[in-house]
Amino acid sequence: MKISARNVIKGKVKKIAKGAVNSEVVIEIPGGTEIVSIITNTSVESLNLKDGMQVYAVVKASNVMIAAD
Amino acid sequence: MKISARNVIKGKVKKIAKGAVNSEVVIEIPGGTEIVSIITNTSVESLNLKDGMQVYAVVKASNVMIAAD
Amino acid sequence: MKISARNVIKGKVKKIAKGAVNSEVVIEIPGGTEIVSIITNTSVESLNLKDGMQVYAVVKASNVMIAAD
Amino acid sequence: MKISARNVIKGKVKKIAKGAVNSEVVIEIPGGTEIVSIITNTSVESLNLKDGMQVYAVVKASNVMIAAD
Amino acid sequence: MKISARNVIKGKVKKIAKGAVNSEVVIEIPGGTEIVSIITNTSVESLNLKDGMQVYAVVKASNVMIAAD
Amino acid sequence: MKISARNVIKGKVKKIAKGAVNSEVVIEIPGGTEIVSIITNTSVESLNLKDGMQVYAVVKASNVMIAAD
Repeated sequence: MKISARNVIKGKVKKIAKGAVNSEVVIEIPGGTEIVSIITNTSVESLNLKDGMQVYAVVKASNVMIAAD
Repeated sequence: MKISARNVIKGKVKKIAKGAVNSEVVIEIPGGTEIVSIITNTSVESLNLKDGMQVYAVVKASNVMIAAD
Repeated sequence: MKISARNVIKGKVKKIAKGAVNSEVVIEIPGGTEIVSIITNTSVESLNLKDGMQVYAVVKASNVMIAAD
Repeated sequence: MKISARNVIKGKVKKIAKGAVNSEVVIEIPGGTEIVSIITNTSVESLNLKDGMQVYAVVKASNVMIAAD
Repeated sequence: MKISARNVIKGKVKKIAKGAVNSEVVIEIPGGTEIVSIITNTSVESLNLKDGMQVYAVVKASNVMIAAD
Repeated sequence: MKISARNVIKGKVKKIAKGAVNSEVVIEIPGGTEIVSIITNTSVESLNLKDGMQVYAVVKASNVMIAAD
């Protein structure tokens, strides 16, 4: 399956913290940058996410802002 | 100014394509990954974005999805 | 590829209207409901979207609001 | 009240799961498709959502992605 | 119709700038603050938006970030 | 740091309600309007948010919808 989201970035699950409805998942991408995601617990289970697993961080271009110093 | 968005990723502007209302901006981050952003033309001008300029891609954690093979 | 987005709804492309940077794509799902999407032109080309093609509308659960009469 | 969101889809509440801050609400639309929404508990109470109640799933077009096989 | 979005802020349309697919609409709220919105041209027409018209800016709480000095 | 988000609205923190992963933060802006935000607990701590503190509500223009009576 191919998705229209312009940002599909390969990385590894570094940490999963579960809440009541949502989980916070940290993904480490090559170069060491960490990307933080909030998804539902159901998605964590459905994707069977585990520490160290290879995944993709997916972000729609319209959800990326830009900041400058 | 510090922002609540959990993802603030340093990079360099690689390409700017202007439309009528929105622009598409490509940012290259260390490791060579490219991040694509859609922001208004007014923001491109207000930040004075130029090719090669150092910027940050900013993404709220709730806007990051995860995909797995 | 499997995605964390909780809403992945099968349908057919009904209409594509291209702008300078973004396109508006209408998807018809079973039951006749239409779902409207705005994605970049680059994504329209990269997915090779055409009228009548089978696709999926993908929406993160945190982007779905609820209204009541 | 009429809203600019292009997607306003009629359905029935099928399930509500409450967390500490957010709730997950499942809406069934005609044809049997289920749409999952994450909204605050305060919104669940303010709309007085109950199982079986008629509601609308509301999604801004810029939050709809497209996937293809 | 009542919506789950926690932010429904009354104001007046101050300016509409049309693009090919999207329009930029500026809303002035009491106290003089301006809120900028990007919606599709179809929505501008469907709501029959005009300068000076009373409207509401609607924002889901999960789309509001916080910054501090 | 300057951000591309078109809406950066000054206000004061009025209330913080913590959940397991996310917090709900209410910001009061001049004129008395309240803006509700959902951010991660980590962001609440990292910005050191407290009642009465001066902050900015930050919203990308593409996340603002418009409603009319």
